[in-house]
Amino acid sequence: MIIERALAERLDAADPLAAFRDRFALGGDDQLIYLDGNSLGRPPKATLERLRALFEEEWQGRLIRGWAEWIELARRAGDVIAGGVVEARPGEVVVSDSTTVNLYKLAVAALDARPGRTVIVTDDDNFPTDQYVFAGLAEARGLRVRKIRTDIDAGVSLADVSAALDDTVALVSLSHVAYRSGAIADMAGITAAAHEAGALVLWDLSHSAGSVPVPLNSANVDLAVGCTYKHLNGGPGAPAFLYVREDLHTQLRQPIWGWFGQRDQFEMGNDYQPADSIERFLVGTPPVPGLYGALEGAGITAEAGIDAIYAKAQSLTELMVTLHDAWLAPLGFTLASPRDAAQRGAHVTLHHKQAWQVCQAWQARGVIPDFRTPERLRIGPAPLYTRHTDVYDGFARLRDLVAAGEHDAFPAERARVT
Amino acid sequence: MIIERALAERLDAADPLAAFRDRFALGGDDQLIYLDGNSLGRPPKATLERLRALFEEEWQGRLIRGWAEWIELARRAGDVIAGGVVEARPGEVVVSDSTTVNLYKLAVAALDARPGRTVIVTDDDNFPTDQYVFAGLAEARGLRVRKIRTDIDAGVSLADVSAALDDTVALVSLSHVAYRSGAIADMAGITAAAHEAGALVLWDLSHSAGSVPVPLNSANVDLAVGCTYKHLNGGPGAPAFLYVREDLHTQLRQPIWGWFGQRDQFEMGNDYQPADSIERFLVGTPPVPGLYGALEGAGITAEAGIDAIYAKAQSLTELMVTLHDAWLAPLGFTLASPRDAAQRGAHVTLHHKQAWQVCQAWQARGVIPDFRTPERLRIGPAPLYTRHTDVYDGFARLRDLVAAGEHDAFPAERARVT
Repeated sequence: MIIERALAERLDAADPLAAFRDRFALGGDDQLIYLDGNSLGRPPKATLERLRALFEEEWQGRLIRGWAEWIELARRAGDVIAGGVVEARPGEVVVSDSTTVNLYKLAVAALDARPGRTVIVTDDDNFPTDQYVFAGLAEARGLRVRKIRTDIDAGVSLADVSAALDDTVALVSLSHVAYRSGAIADMAGITAAAHEAGALVLWDLSHSAGSVPVPLNSANVDLAVGCTYKHLNGGPGAPAFLYVREDLHTQLRQPIWGWFGQRDQFEMGNDYQPADSIERFLVGTPPVPGLYGALEGAGITAEAGIDAIYAKAQSLTELMVTLHDAWLAPLGFTLASPRDAAQRGAHVTLHHKQAWQVCQAWQARGVIPDFRTPERLRIGPAPLYTRHTDVYDGFARLRDLVAAGEHDAFPAERARVT
Repeated sequence: MIIERALAERLDAADPLAAFRDRFALGGDDQLIYLDGNSLGRPPKATLERLRALFEEEWQGRLIRGWAEWIELARRAGDVIAGGVVEARPGEVVVSDSTTVNLYKLAVAALDARPGRTVIVTDDDNFPTDQYVFAGLAEARGLRVRKIRTDIDAGVSLADVSAALDDTVALVSLSHVAYRSGAIADMAGITAAAHEAGALVLWDLSHSAGSVPVPLNSANVDLAVGCTYKHLNGGPGAPAFLYVREDLHTQLRQPIWGWFGQRDQFEMGNDYQPADSIERFLVGTPPVPGLYGALEGAGITAEAGIDAIYAKAQSLTELMVTLHDAWLAPLGFTLASPRDAAQRGAHVTLHHKQAWQVCQAWQARGVIPDFRTPERLRIGPAPLYTRHTDVYDGFARLRDLVAAGEHDAFPAERARVT
């Protein structure tokens, strides 16, 4: 089947977000096609300028006095996320720690709020660090993790979650967009079912924040965590964010009592009095460069608008599915993501039995995807800076290299993969 | 009493570390005297260049491929600290999270290793976040915190710690250098006494790492945490480090199970298998800018040598005590730090009943100290870039402004203080 490049060009010409590409620093390699913005987003130019000022001016010139501004960043970045990235009220989101540490803090807070209940529900395709956190908590507290068995290409269903619920369940925690397949879970339906069973819910938004609408308020979500270095373009290792619905702020306590969660922090009192606000879920001194990265990155997403970003994500992934069907399926690829665009986030995963070799060969051809076990290419065309022609050209290179057998020349055995 | 500036000039001329001042970016304000490097160290020039490369080249150009190097940074920075900042073996230190999160992780690991014991010993002048962590753990686990009552100007004594020990004590945790007075605790004596009682010890090195020798190995210390943004000059919010004695690596487990603590992290297995090494005390994705800050900052400290740094710290603080006695004591100041240089870290604290007003007036005169409750100026002349003449000139300004009553014009009520 012939698909003309002109199709991709027409889609780009009609793209309302096209101008945002120029807001990012794209490096010097014009031939490089980056399809892994869902692992590490590209740097916004504004962020690079902000970090230059932080290091060259504020740290150097303001020194300790810089904290007069830095102390507010966790909340400022949180409010930008609450207003423009996820559906949340001001004061319900704060940027802090890593996703894993935030999962731990909020999971403990939830479990403490459901004494006597003995089960954590998650799914066996949830991101590994989520599964590890819950395993650790189960062991420490004598609980059980009930893992829903999930089709790794289709995602977790409301029916499967409902079947796992009963009055022993304290907490339900799932990823909103599956890290492997990109499948979107039914946030509203699952949250309602969990509440019906008397459980609290904790959503991991790592792959949905900045890529798809996240209806935290309208779904009445209790708790959530998310990542800022993927679709929010916060930079390598930028801190995570956490969300706690406002009526829960004073009901819940997180376990790591630290000075950034303390009311009147700089009074240096000896007794812990948690703040009444979202700040009670903070712990220690935050990484200032990463806070600026999160703030600026979330700001660009908010400016573009999550609905527009999601619409473009659907357009880009739809093109990928079309090209897969036309070019790649005959070469041994299968789609390992939902075929229905409404069920997908902003990335698509393809299975190939030599996926690791194909991944290396594709990189050698100047395209950067992600490899994921088992034998999958995870391909994320970040909507803010990826063109339809990038997808077209990248997939053409993939088709050509596999048709030519170039991947057979690369090692089948994986060394450490990031 | 007349003390000539020539004294300070002679000390600077003989200073073997004098050349290190040029390794730091000192900003454009030649008149500014910075005496708060113990809260936030100045930027090393090498760090600014490294961060520029990280943001402008690696993030922008290497993108996700940058992780091939970044993934090793937590351990590389840890090994620099282990080799050149604290006395520890390679593989016993890693950079991770905030000091507070690390305190929590290691305290839980220690408490789990002493089942049946019900007491955590600390002191009531320990840094507030340490006290909060232990209060939270005591509440969660039904334990008791036994707080030694400490003279806030003299620090905690071995005798006081020994009196608090018995066979109910699971963990003893103290600061090596007291955050307020700068008093150095007897690490070897207290660790031995704790071990004698069957307890584990966890030292907070936030104010000692990079300022005084830290004999972790020769004192047979079990556990420690420390800060990299103070004397190690890692930058605002740079991550903390943690130390675990190597024979304890496989005996202890920390509670926050995450993918960076997992053996074969990128196999993405569903079951948590902690690494056998110091990496098992890691949790989630680390803040890459801060890791570079810690790495470069620790490197300069290691190059200068901690014994030389400590010798200069003693010389600088000795000059401060001399100037205090001569100039400031008659103006209502008292020394709120040990008078014996061997008992002090790299900062000195002065009490004045209008300390907050004096602090503001001193800043207006171009000198930056730190304010600490109750009514104290904390003054840290970081040895790597502070000259004896800086101390002399800064104290002269302090003497003159208080003698002139300039501080009376500043608000007595404190707003939020950083």
